[in-house]
Amino acid sequence: MTGTTVLGVLGGMGPMATVDFLKKLVEATPAARDQDHLGVMVAQASDIPDRTSAILGRGPDPLPAMTTALRRLEAAGATRIAMPCNTAHHWHGALQALTPVPILHIVDAVAEALARKGIGGGSIGLLATDGTLLSGIYPQRLARFGFTCRTPEDQSSVMRAIRRVKAGACAEARDLLRAQAEALVASGCRQVVLACTEIPVALAEPPVPLRPLLLDATQALARACVASAIEPASRAA
Amino acid sequence: MTGTTVLGVLGGMGPMATVDFLKKLVEATPAARDQDHLGVMVAQASDIPDRTSAILGRGPDPLPAMTTALRRLEAAGATRIAMPCNTAHHWHGALQALTPVPILHIVDAVAEALARKGIGGGSIGLLATDGTLLSGIYPQRLARFGFTCRTPEDQSSVMRAIRRVKAGACAEARDLLRAQAEALVASGCRQVVLACTEIPVALAEPPVPLRPLLLDATQALARACVASAIEPASRAA
Repeated sequence: MTGTTVLGVLGGMGPMATVDFLKKLVEATPAARDQDHLGVMVAQASDIPDRTSAILGRGPDPLPAMTTALRRLEAAGATRIAMPCNTAHHWHGALQALTPVPILHIVDAVAEALARKGIGGGSIGLLATDGTLLSGIYPQRLARFGFTCRTPEDQSSVMRAIRRVKAGACAEARDLLRAQAEALVASGCRQVVLACTEIPVALAEPPVPLRPLLLDATQALARACVASAIEPASRAA
Repeated sequence: MTGTTVLGVLGGMGPMATVDFLKKLVEATPAARDQDHLGVMVAQASDIPDRTSAILGRGPDPLPAMTTALRRLEAAGATRIAMPCNTAHHWHGALQALTPVPILHIVDAVAEALARKGIGGGSIGLLATDGTLLSGIYPQRLARFGFTCRTPEDQSSVMRAIRRVKAGACAEARDLLRAQAEALVASGCRQVVLACTEIPVALAEPPVPLRPLLLDATQALARACVASAIEPASRAA
């Protein structure tokens, strides 16, 4: 962590989703010993107010607490920042305006992952929070790449599942999420993006027929971070 | 993470062991929503030279890189520090002398976990690195509580297993570790301490007869951190 890339992780939204991201980051790194891994600083800033409540106008603004965590990461020497929380990307522009340190965008990472899968356009399903859907970050950003986004038949069951994961009840969440993912595929979606970092925690072992149709945004972000560290010159621009 | 306890995690030794520790920390925290969790700053300082090689006199001193990570955690506001690496505790005293921030000791956390299991003395087996065994941190610190420590029949297979985990090959490691744990139990150990943070990564699902006889030092440290944050006044002294 001296002199080279230090990835700052603005985390805690939620805490287990950050752990899941860190695991995927380690797995995505070509390494045979400790010293081959990236230098990473993580702010597990669990006191950040709920992002969806804020976007829906029912809760406090999370930006001040996110800014505190950002400042801690800057103080600790971060040279890149990633946020393993899709909904938090509603504030991506506001945070980027506060710091010269590049903040990777999770939707760009998903677009890169779709391209790697050879999917160049069409309808994409979103399993996400109400806040992420209302903020429009996915349809706005994916439209540039020729994608249209579709939301679940029963969004309330997706939100229920996300809250169950945050409370540690993953088994209940799994069945709810699987039903909504299957319905999105049946409605013609080429891929279903797990666009809330709590969702892959619950869907760690999806049923085999569904597996190739799911795209894990957390894993996509982890891979983008590794690529950014390995090819800093081409990505920091 | 504003105003209250911020746990600093001096990690990266190795990176997946730190992820395992963070997972156990989240699981050990009584929480139903993000905001109930501890504020945590993690330095995933994977560039710290190998601890065992240094203790054996075959590699560079890890203390300078550990000190850099410590300084980053201090700069980021840590009010307590934990190191999810048993071997790193060889430098616990040297690091504690550099900072007023209390650094929890993993062997004290293990002693507390033994007490919670109702085990008040006797023979304890150690699955640990060559460095941890040579440093003597476990027998020295556990002797105060009436324990004697026993080392594996075939320590070289334990080291081989640890290196396999660091390279991502957990299945191979599991069989090696299980055989040594069973031999320690057969030789009269009341508990076998998984005293290297790579080991519970490989032994996540130990065979049922062995399960109650294993004590996971990583989990013990995570629980000690949660207790320290919940009762700061009584533990910070």
